Amino acid sequence: MKQAADSALLTDLYQLTMLQAYHDEDLQQTAVFELFVRTLPAQRQFLLLAGIEPALAFLEQLRFDQDELDWLHATGRFRTDFLDSLAELRFTGEVHAMREGTVFFANEPVLRVEAPIAQAQLVESRLLNLVHYATLVASKAARCKLAAPDNLLVDFGLRRAHGAEAGLVAARSSYLAGFAGSATVLAGQQYGIPVFGTMAHSYVEVHELEVQAFRAYAGSQTGLRGPLTLLIDTYDTEAAARKIVALAPALERRGARIGSVRLDSGDLAMHARLVRTIFDQGGLQEVSLFASGDLDEWRLRQLLRAGAPIDGFGVGTALSTSADVPALDAVYKLQSYAGKPRRKRSEGKATWPGAKQVWRWSGPDDRIERDRVALADEPAPPGAQALLQPVMRAGRRIAPPEPLDALRAHAAAQLAALPEPLRGIDAAMPEQAYPVAISEALQQLAASLDRLPH
Amino acid sequence: MKQAADSALLTDLYQLTMLQAYHDEDLQQTAVFELFVRTLPAQRQFLLLAGIEPALAFLEQLRFDQDELDWLHATGRFRTDFLDSLAELRFTGEVHAMREGTVFFANEPVLRVEAPIAQAQLVESRLLNLVHYATLVASKAARCKLAAPDNLLVDFGLRRAHGAEAGLVAARSSYLAGFAGSATVLAGQQYGIPVFGTMAHSYVEVHELEVQAFRAYAGSQTGLRGPLTLLIDTYDTEAAARKIVALAPALERRGARIGSVRLDSGDLAMHARLVRTIFDQGGLQEVSLFASGDLDEWRLRQLLRAGAPIDGFGVGTALSTSADVPALDAVYKLQSYAGKPRRKRSEGKATWPGAKQVWRWSGPDDRIERDRVALADEPAPPGAQALLQPVMRAGRRIAPPEPLDALRAHAAAQLAALPEPLRGIDAAMPEQAYPVAISEALQQLAASLDRLPH
Repeated sequence: MKQAADSALLTDLYQLTMLQAYHDEDLQQTAVFELFVRTLPAQRQFLLLAGIEPALAFLEQLRFDQDELDWLHATGRFRTDFLDSLAELRFTGEVHAMREGTVFFANEPVLRVEAPIAQAQLVESRLLNLVHYATLVASKAARCKLAAPDNLLVDFGLRRAHGAEAGLVAARSSYLAGFAGSATVLAGQQYGIPVFGTMAHSYVEVHELEVQAFRAYAGSQTGLRGPLTLLIDTYDTEAAARKIVALAPALERRGARIGSVRLDSGDLAMHARLVRTIFDQGGLQEVSLFASGDLDEWRLRQLLRAGAPIDGFGVGTALSTSADVPALDAVYKLQSYAGKPRRKRSEGKATWPGAKQVWRWSGPDDRIERDRVALADEPAPPGAQALLQPVMRAGRRIAPPEPLDALRAHAAAQLAALPEPLRGIDAAMPEQAYPVAISEALQQLAASLDRLPH
Repeated sequence: MKQAADSALLTDLYQLTMLQAYHDEDLQQTAVFELFVRTLPAQRQFLLLAGIEPALAFLEQLRFDQDELDWLHATGRFRTDFLDSLAELRFTGEVHAMREGTVFFANEPVLRVEAPIAQAQLVESRLLNLVHYATLVASKAARCKLAAPDNLLVDFGLRRAHGAEAGLVAARSSYLAGFAGSATVLAGQQYGIPVFGTMAHSYVEVHELEVQAFRAYAGSQTGLRGPLTLLIDTYDTEAAARKIVALAPALERRGARIGSVRLDSGDLAMHARLVRTIFDQGGLQEVSLFASGDLDEWRLRQLLRAGAPIDGFGVGTALSTSADVPALDAVYKLQSYAGKPRRKRSEGKATWPGAKQVWRWSGPDDRIERDRVALADEPAPPGAQALLQPVMRAGRRIAPPEPLDALRAHAAAQLAALPEPLRGIDAAMPEQAYPVAISEALQQLAASLDRLPH
């Protein structure tokens, strides 16, 4: 049995009924679809692209198994000749995409699919599902990174992520955006992401006395790889810190060195200051402080501005659900069919027609300055970089997947290249918004399509 | 290869390092953990439980495969004798749970796990991940159902759900809460949920003229099961409606009957009224109107209060991301170990100790009136119903999974039994909040634990 995530049935019903109509009409010509975000929410001045590599993997493995075809047949909604054609369906198209880790803005296509209409249509639901969420989390993580650029940031979001795949994708996207790693073990196995762990309150509570828990945990970790972190807020944070000062020499003699402690409740800035003082006066200057508990980019900034001596943060629910912006206005739209540009003209939802390219200009300091969305066949404007690059031809990836660390380095360079007004986590003034122009030719094409009958 | 969702590594690293410590300390006695929501967000007056059945399936299949153990070994964080014990680990405990579809409130355990500490500890991350999101969506869907009790409601949320599993769970949870079905095909195959579909703008745009698209799609659907729905807002909604009036007789002669049309943009109430008039005057009184596009419970209420003649709604992103409340304060806490009750006492995060039961009283009209959280070994209070029931013994389900439709009927009865103030989708006054008492014995136990040394 295929994984649910890989099932060709992980799509909207209308894709299949439309495919049946295309089949009946013998419509097989090439369609161009583009995936983009229509508008940015007020709390997002830029987005950080993720999910492209998983999207390409999805396209490469797309096929209908016999049990899926049998189930479709049993619904009574599909004819046998159409289902026979579905059995043969593979993705054979071309894909252009921005590189994962690239900063992008509203109305800029990040993925362009060119394929026979049935293929290009069918993949809409899952492509969006993959790229939308991965980008959502990468963009949230980038904001955390901008708020706390010098701190260790760890994804703690699995338990309240929206399902298994979300937990994994949150780990990948946040690492891509500059997090140090994740608490999710499977992300370590599947993506090679560094995994981090501390201890839970339940562990402390299983023991009669808190100090017994500290001693036993440290003993268990002795001689193994991985820093030793103790959780100190189960009862009384400062009392626990003093217990650790008292315990440290004995642990040290047995080869256990405490790497850090975690604070998870109360006034984190206050507790961090008190614990730091207790540790510094007790000879534990090297023990670092790690905080968690309802953190997001604003709390990180607030804690750091308050001078809280916190070295690292675990960011959980706010990251894995992108809590302040749990969805983007991401869409996948037909831009041309059989060589003719197409434009959706619904009220408030009109799109820019035709296959497009996104051009970007940077300043002498490498900061990005402005973008232009143009038709793909317009000549390259001088001094600009083309953000959409071919990544798949005839349904196969052009190059093997890039290592995640290379994409992470790209994301770091992209964040470093953000203009100053976009580096803040508060909404920028409208006049500071990043300029994205629509080329003259594209505007003319849109206007000419609006004059066509329908 | 196991599905990612079934991997024993889909957990937080600290669960495994704690398990190693329990192993080293030879701590094997029974722990009681309970899953509950600490506080309700202002926009949620009640929650609707979902995700229990998937949680039990997870517990039954839990095991570490050799490749997972090999990977853990390679991290250098674990000793061989511990990994050998992990290879043998199965869930052998007892589980009590509320029935899926039950209405519940803050501080009420919905799931209680009693098992050797290692087992009960390990499953925390995935149990929360499963029950939290399923409940989040069921609760959001229940609000949509309360706002539009007489309309056809369909889950359109796959594309912006947070990953593959979220898309599937959103379909299951919303159906459980009273939706008619989902657009997600895989939810039909996996859960037997009715699937619904219309057509997309891209299909219309592939054709030179809108009317060609209508004719071709209707032709393709002729003779097949499933209602025929046409999308009419690609260019000009009322013009499209008039085209359909003109087209209908010819379609009818060829055996195609238009079931409904979908509106997806602009002022939905205004367009619905205009289209309804065009259809009624054009002899299409039987054609129903279906609306979609950024809908949630408030929009549904607004449209219905405005008298919009809309028969059905597709609810997408707001449902599958629970956009206004994308996470709940759901936790899984140790309540006793080796027969001794335990209490987390962290600032602002204290829990009620011991294995508990939730009792509920209903009025003569079957409306629910008040709950009491009590210790599980307190005698049954007269006239109350025990919400937590045994569902798993020695690691196996006591009964086969209930059919989803039975759970859906239960959810409908639960929503019907809500007191009037809780039926509104706006936040109720604090004095109208549903009363949940903490039993005298439970309060005394908590106070006595607070006096213990730590």
